[in-house]
Amino acid sequence: MSETPAAGALAEEARALDAADALAPLRDRFVLDPGTVYLDGNSLGALPEGVAGRLADVVSREWGRLRIRSWTESGWWTMPERVGDLIAPLVGAAPGQIVVGDSTSVNVFKALIGAVRLARADSAQRDEILVDAATFPTDGYIAASAARLTGCTVRAVPADAVSEAVGERTAAVLLNHVDYRTGALHDLPALTAAARRAGAVSVWDLCHSAGALPVGLDEHGVDLAVGCTYKFLNGGPGSPAYLYVRSGLQDRFETPLPGWTSHAEPFAMAPDYRPAAGAARGRVGTPDILSMAALEEALRVWDGVRIEDVRAKSLALTDFFLRCVAARQDEGAAVTVRSLTPAEHARRGSQVALLCDPEDGAEQVMAELIARGVVGDFRRPGVLRFGFTPLYTSFKDVERAARVLGEVIGGDR
Amino acid sequence: MSETPAAGALAEEARALDAADALAPLRDRFVLDPGTVYLDGNSLGALPEGVAGRLADVVSREWGRLRIRSWTESGWWTMPERVGDLIAPLVGAAPGQIVVGDSTSVNVFKALIGAVRLARADSAQRDEILVDAATFPTDGYIAASAARLTGCTVRAVPADAVSEAVGERTAAVLLNHVDYRTGALHDLPALTAAARRAGAVSVWDLCHSAGALPVGLDEHGVDLAVGCTYKFLNGGPGSPAYLYVRSGLQDRFETPLPGWTSHAEPFAMAPDYRPAAGAARGRVGTPDILSMAALEEALRVWDGVRIEDVRAKSLALTDFFLRCVAARQDEGAAVTVRSLTPAEHARRGSQVALLCDPEDGAEQVMAELIARGVVGDFRRPGVLRFGFTPLYTSFKDVERAARVLGEVIGGDR
Repeated sequence: MSETPAAGALAEEARALDAADALAPLRDRFVLDPGTVYLDGNSLGALPEGVAGRLADVVSREWGRLRIRSWTESGWWTMPERVGDLIAPLVGAAPGQIVVGDSTSVNVFKALIGAVRLARADSAQRDEILVDAATFPTDGYIAASAARLTGCTVRAVPADAVSEAVGERTAAVLLNHVDYRTGALHDLPALTAAARRAGAVSVWDLCHSAGALPVGLDEHGVDLAVGCTYKFLNGGPGSPAYLYVRSGLQDRFETPLPGWTSHAEPFAMAPDYRPAAGAARGRVGTPDILSMAALEEALRVWDGVRIEDVRAKSLALTDFFLRCVAARQDEGAAVTVRSLTPAEHARRGSQVALLCDPEDGAEQVMAELIARGVVGDFRRPGVLRFGFTPLYTSFKDVERAARVLGEVIGGDR
Repeated sequence: MSETPAAGALAEEARALDAADALAPLRDRFVLDPGTVYLDGNSLGALPEGVAGRLADVVSREWGRLRIRSWTESGWWTMPERVGDLIAPLVGAAPGQIVVGDSTSVNVFKALIGAVRLARADSAQRDEILVDAATFPTDGYIAASAARLTGCTVRAVPADAVSEAVGERTAAVLLNHVDYRTGALHDLPALTAAARRAGAVSVWDLCHSAGALPVGLDEHGVDLAVGCTYKFLNGGPGSPAYLYVRSGLQDRFETPLPGWTSHAEPFAMAPDYRPAAGAARGRVGTPDILSMAALEEALRVWDGVRIEDVRAKSLALTDFFLRCVAARQDEGAAVTVRSLTPAEHARRGSQVALLCDPEDGAEQVMAELIARGVVGDFRRPGVLRFGFTPLYTSFKDVERAARVLGEVIGGDR
């Protein structure tokens, strides 16, 4: 395949952008292979360099040699709050408000039941949970379960309509910061403020935003938040999630999942539950040390990195991708694509979702892309998702991905 | 210290018992150091040999090189049921009834809410959860939470009194198979039958029995069960727990924690929850692969091992320990100990709990034991716990532990 002048110009532009990219050296903190353009970090982040060594030490020395002593001597016991405090600056939280453990789903459950209880402490008649209509499915399922257990109903409304929908019956508002399918970024400051004005408790799911853009939990007065750590935080497959409870609510937060590890006096083994102070109140079972150690090490890639710089690069990457894709499209192609991701920066996360026409061609297009070394993923019915992790994605990667996409859909000129 | 004839006889007996022990070679499947007698496997099992290598491969190749492809190509997606089927024979369950994931606490919650719903489907007025009065604290806290969310009350009764207490108001009965403090083994067949006769749903916590003795879940008609995997199953610190739902109940089991991973069509990303068939219905979040891979490898130590043989050795170990401790006690000692663990085999788990007199000496006694290479643990107010893992504990270990205990409490003659 010979390059057209336009294509050559884009490749040249990619080289210039990479040369000017202050974050480019961070790529060396990850294990990557030059033959692959990995644009699925919004599903599973790439492996940070230090993780293998750290896990080997945790297994062989901390578990294998020290065994039970490691709960104190290797700092296992305090890991949920310690790792939480490593996540905190990435989401704009002061220390002491985030605890790591369990899955996102389980933390959504803790947060929602806790939110309903908080809201009802002030106003007993609140009986509605508002949910983003385009929510990630599990959040909706958990909302339905929480509603069933607390005598609430769930009302699904588009995120844009939440400010109007929230009212005196609303106990909790559950929103995804970035839509998992389209990559649309919702207006966290405005929606949080609207929930608060109505007396409802806000719960944000940060799975697709944390590590990709500034969240500002404290600044915007978010009440509760959850997120996974295996996407832009690169914690590994199924790594533990986290729960944020803002400090002003911690004393009143009542978890539906109390455990001895969140007891004020864990080793008293008391028959009655008395919750610990602070973030530890969100704990439930025995901390999962192997996965949490991998995550702790993975978070070291953020040393010296400002999330604002990551955001700037993320927008530059997605802008460039959209331009390259447009330049590579041919009206006569077998498959055409259009972006579902908002063009406006203020409404865009760190992924681009392309809807294929015809939709039923999308799965095959993604299979072909992967076969050619460009890894994104596919969401039914016809969406190609490409995630951009600024810590390790280069502009050259972006140019190559769009070029290969153009070849696959038949638009290469 | 010179040995008395009695001490010499016990050491000789230990050598003979080890020589005759068909399970003795299994010790080589674990990483152990000869200087330590590790009797805390009922808190954190020792490291199985293969785990470090398996984890290194999962991290470096499956995550690092294959990345997202590993969900299918490395079998990550099916791991919760696959690892569940490795646990199944150890607890007397046919395949397809156990799913691995989350903490024990979270699984107790799923099981209890599910149990109340199952019981009420047959008889709506059931509004009581019966709990073993000596339960591990978290189980009691979770029972209180489940009761609050379902309009039930919790009644705590001694396990021995459950058969009389269970009645037409009882929705669920939550019992610990082996008491975490005393090591007492409860009568699972009789108590399960009593719950069933009363129309209540039985929920068993197997944390301190699975891997140490036959459980017979299917044989005895247990409805629901949960357990951890980091004690006698050696899965590592905080490794994922499991949930058993007997096959006859699976279609009616309604989890309070539904997630996309337990949806009948996970990748349809449907807004409404439709539960998967079988054990997968107990899933909630994204499976925690690193910890689950460690567990899967750890379970290979059971290849060719019959749980009945493990039980026979466990009883021989605890019998021998009790005899050695008695032989090493001196009436004039600063601290004396008496066993809280039932002498009767049918009522004994795989640990021995010794109550110190005076009680406030116990913590120091355990600290001194650990300093001398004998690792058990301490539970307030005055209990020394010693767990016996037949896969890697030798009779020589037992003799040494009792001898050092005798020295520490001042009873050495």
